[in-house]
Amino acid sequence: MIGVFDSGVGGLTVLKALLREMPAERFVYLGDTARLPYGTKSPETVGRYALQAAEALAGYGLKCLVMACNTASAVALPAVRAQLASLPVIGVIEPGAEAAADASTSGRIAVLATEGTVRGGAYQQAILRRRPEAQVYALPAPLFVALAEEGLGDGPIAEAVAHHYLDALFAPAAGAAPDTLVLGCTHFPMVAGAIRAAVGSAVRIVDSAETTARHVRAALRQAGLAQAGGQGGLRLLATDAPERFARIGARFLERPISEREVELIDL
Amino acid sequence: MIGVFDSGVGGLTVLKALLREMPAERFVYLGDTARLPYGTKSPETVGRYALQAAEALAGYGLKCLVMACNTASAVALPAVRAQLASLPVIGVIEPGAEAAADASTSGRIAVLATEGTVRGGAYQQAILRRRPEAQVYALPAPLFVALAEEGLGDGPIAEAVAHHYLDALFAPAAGAAPDTLVLGCTHFPMVAGAIRAAVGSAVRIVDSAETTARHVRAALRQAGLAQAGGQGGLRLLATDAPERFARIGARFLERPISEREVELIDL
Repeated sequence: MIGVFDSGVGGLTVLKALLREMPAERFVYLGDTARLPYGTKSPETVGRYALQAAEALAGYGLKCLVMACNTASAVALPAVRAQLASLPVIGVIEPGAEAAADASTSGRIAVLATEGTVRGGAYQQAILRRRPEAQVYALPAPLFVALAEEGLGDGPIAEAVAHHYLDALFAPAAGAAPDTLVLGCTHFPMVAGAIRAAVGSAVRIVDSAETTARHVRAALRQAGLAQAGGQGGLRLLATDAPERFARIGARFLERPISEREVELIDL
Repeated sequence: MIGVFDSGVGGLTVLKALLREMPAERFVYLGDTARLPYGTKSPETVGRYALQAAEALAGYGLKCLVMACNTASAVALPAVRAQLASLPVIGVIEPGAEAAADASTSGRIAVLATEGTVRGGAYQQAILRRRPEAQVYALPAPLFVALAEEGLGDGPIAEAVAHHYLDALFAPAAGAAPDTLVLGCTHFPMVAGAIRAAVGSAVRIVDSAETTARHVRAALRQAGLAQAGGQGGLRLLATDAPERFARIGARFLERPISEREVELIDL
């Protein structure tokens, strides 16, 4: 099985991309809904939660663990790798940073993320390791999380919020705008239309969910661990409120989720 | 001391009202910032968290505990009262419901709250106990929490969100609108201006923070426990991220909070 860990339902955008890239694989997804969101919590707390979740997922017999949560990837990836020494652990930051560094012509790259991810500086560092001359603008955009969860990812409110966050950097009068924008939170693909409306059609938008899914597939193939055929499968675990997980999660996964599909576990 | 418990910084609007009503009292405020928000979590989880927090606060030597969190008041007040049998425990639901039942002429009352508070039905029941003929419309309004925390309680985005939540009930074409609206979440006083703009000037807005503070003062006087004079005092405790608590909390408390004022505790 491939384990996928997130603080809640946001990581279902990563799971959706993984299912599309690797339909024959079996996945187990854990959303830590009892303690979400991670994006506003301290690195110490996020690290403790991520280690507990990774440990619990490892018990399901994994060949690979995907840290779908940007905040957890940003602050806890080394600790989780150290704890699960025998298991490949893939975060969402490096694939997103690599795709952004490749996509940008001007080297001016914006990263939209949670407060925790922005403060941790992981995207900034990962991009600068690849392109030391880059100018990276990391912006916290926490309202997008609430908008995505409420199903308001499209429409006038989401567009007003997108303008609020992005106009200072992207409006025509703002000068040399970034040519690339990274969606550095699992919720943000749900708001991509509003973001696109605010930044215009010329900006390249990097979805870290999709880049991560391609990265996981390549890593499994390289290690000879890819599933050759078969039906695949999916187990969904949550630490709280299965009904809400099913209801909100269905929008993120783009398929119905029944409440009975969601297994409640205790960390 | 008077203990004040909330899931995060929102309860500081209740603390602000308490400090104004009872400047001579000593307060200890606990924000469970490691596990916020409670509004989207299950009653079982909120109940467990609230009991742990109440137990910790009781250790500070209290004469009264105020459950400032609407969600915790809605689902965990009886359990906390049972656990702290010797201590008066006051929630925010009953005072708000009483004020709304008194304020309404038509008996049509709207309650804006978190998902958890709305689902629990505590406001609806508390209003109907006082006015069985009332029509109570409970609406979840989770985006207001994010807007308040981000300092966007005023302005065009908050007003657009207020219209989104309230127009179906309050727009002139909607028919007989409620004449009273309860702010049933500690964050919502921060968005009161936008709510007022959406519902018009004729609607009575009940701030459960203020009604609770008056209720606490009356209860302490009646029990002979009110502090007669002196300087008062305040200790601030949080379970995570003191820097964020200080930064965001200052807006809610309407006075500067230094990061060193915020004591980190573990539940």
